[in-house]
Amino acid sequence: MRIALDAMGGDRAPAVPVAGAVQAARLYGIEVPLVGRPEVIQAELAKHDTRGLSLPIVPASQVVEMTDHVDAVRARKDASMNVGARLVRRGEADGFVSAGHSGAVMAAALFNIGRIPGIKRPALGTVYPTIPGHCFVLDVGANTECTPLYLLQFALMGSIFMEKIYGLPRPTVALLSNGEEEDKGNLLVRQATPLLKASGLNFIGNAEGKDVPKGLADVIVTDGFSGNVLIKLSEGLVVALGLIIVNELKAGVVGKLALLLAVPGAILALPTLLLSLPALRRIVRRFYYAEFGGAHLLGVNGPVVVAHGRSNVKAIQNAIRVCKESVERDVVGTIREGVKDLPGGEWPQRASQYVDHI
Amino acid sequence: MRIALDAMGGDRAPAVPVAGAVQAARLYGIEVPLVGRPEVIQAELAKHDTRGLSLPIVPASQVVEMTDHVDAVRARKDASMNVGARLVRRGEADGFVSAGHSGAVMAAALFNIGRIPGIKRPALGTVYPTIPGHCFVLDVGANTECTPLYLLQFALMGSIFMEKIYGLPRPTVALLSNGEEEDKGNLLVRQATPLLKASGLNFIGNAEGKDVPKGLADVIVTDGFSGNVLIKLSEGLVVALGLIIVNELKAGVVGKLALLLAVPGAILALPTLLLSLPALRRIVRRFYYAEFGGAHLLGVNGPVVVAHGRSNVKAIQNAIRVCKESVERDVVGTIREGVKDLPGGEWPQRASQYVDHI
Repeated sequence: MRIALDAMGGDRAPAVPVAGAVQAARLYGIEVPLVGRPEVIQAELAKHDTRGLSLPIVPASQVVEMTDHVDAVRARKDASMNVGARLVRRGEADGFVSAGHSGAVMAAALFNIGRIPGIKRPALGTVYPTIPGHCFVLDVGANTECTPLYLLQFALMGSIFMEKIYGLPRPTVALLSNGEEEDKGNLLVRQATPLLKASGLNFIGNAEGKDVPKGLADVIVTDGFSGNVLIKLSEGLVVALGLIIVNELKAGVVGKLALLLAVPGAILALPTLLLSLPALRRIVRRFYYAEFGGAHLLGVNGPVVVAHGRSNVKAIQNAIRVCKESVERDVVGTIREGVKDLPGGEWPQRASQYVDHI
Repeated sequence: MRIALDAMGGDRAPAVPVAGAVQAARLYGIEVPLVGRPEVIQAELAKHDTRGLSLPIVPASQVVEMTDHVDAVRARKDASMNVGARLVRRGEADGFVSAGHSGAVMAAALFNIGRIPGIKRPALGTVYPTIPGHCFVLDVGANTECTPLYLLQFALMGSIFMEKIYGLPRPTVALLSNGEEEDKGNLLVRQATPLLKASGLNFIGNAEGKDVPKGLADVIVTDGFSGNVLIKLSEGLVVALGLIIVNELKAGVVGKLALLLAVPGAILALPTLLLSLPALRRIVRRFYYAEFGGAHLLGVNGPVVVAHGRSNVKAIQNAIRVCKESVERDVVGTIREGVKDLPGGEWPQRASQYVDHI
């Protein structure tokens, strides 16, 4: 097994990606080709004990930075994310992981690997924490304008992901909407509903925003605009709630008293607090998709995982693990087969009423 | 001042609305006409001390239930929400509040009062808690399909609301989007951007989901689909987080230990916990818009507030207060003047590319 890694991608590249690759190669016993500038990768590798590990360097002379425009992907043919994606196309790697500019990684994957035949648009999917465990939300940002057919295909891909990676036999699928009832939703959602009903997937109808953390469905399907608002709001709200609690406490006289008492109270409850810290950290991390091994670019004709730009070593390691699992469980091949059986072939014409500018 | 109340609207009508009206009439010294079936309202009023209060009963023989279809508004001319809205049109009330079926209240307001001249679509707006305080989000559910012109008008209405009701001199306005940069967004957002820039409003660009609880802008403008997902996800996430924390603690050995220790820890920290309770309750309540006096139906040619179906007595009282403030500060009249000065008159033609089915 060979999972290529973009050694130049992410806010703290190349140090963090290289360290993540070393851990992944050791833990999972796989080969992790490191794509990027040989001299800087070599310098990073020298900081680790890499005896017995398979970490070949694949040279790439250029880099697409986090601050670059997506167009840089076309201009810099020898950028690490282009070189890495080409390894997958040529069969020289089984999958590719990058923590670089997410839009650019998507573009590099599309240009160099291409779509699965029949798939209209790749989607970015992410694991989202719920009360009972987690669900998979897609699209979280790849397609801001969608047609009903896209949503149908997202549902198929999300369903296959949850079945293959999480071992759920028939994952439940819901459409994100502004009401539970079937007549609720924007035109896109209402027109996608009959397609999903006829799809053979385990479609259970609409999910409201509040139903997502409740865990109403295993797969939440939405357009990339609403999906992006959903995951970013969740990240922001978790952080904000902590600060709002402190502000609220400061606001009232009773609250101020509580804050004063909180100091001795905290000391008294210190063992509990200390022991709770790992759990609290887990909660915050559950809302950062890096911890889940990144966002999954589904619909591309090869396994590609887009890790968070802020990924730490553990997140890179997780992203490599998830990409490896995707290869082992043949997520791409299953999507390739599944899309052939999907209804909705007549939709591309009717869908022309939708703006299609990507 | 006369704020009419739908005595038959809400999950716990007529008891809760009538109790809320009694409190509001006493606290604010205003007249609160109660619209609905006289005998049931009379029976509820008898449970309160109403001496010196002005709570006239306005008979309405029909009711639109929470479970009814919106069409019931057209069919039942003598429904309490229709009668209440007509009081505003005829000048027999200064404003109208209902905790009934929100879609039906909007329909009743439109049929009986109508739109402010020049306003394309009324929007539902709600106050949303942020780290520094709060912002106003609209549309949160009235229009699932929008045009750039609608968003421009929502921005105007939200801006006037925050200026008049919260006393902010030049409220900052942002468009909810999937990225901060100006080229990010779906087509709707990107085409609304030049309109907002030219509007004379204090437009600061795009806000991502995470920026909303941060308090990046005073007014967050979005379509009714994404806005609805945003507020419902927020409600759901606040509740889910508490449960997720407990689940996380139960999951690990360390967590289980922490839970065990939490009992003596909690007893030791009891004064703090007890004193924090009001603050914690305030936080949860901040995420239920009923606590803010309901959602504001802006763009209708008279003050209308849609309270949450689950409103308690305090929420009804707040909704009446906010409706009264809207009358005093002439939100409707200011919108009427403001819309005349808005640019974008050429947009209705170009906007025809958008689906417009409402």
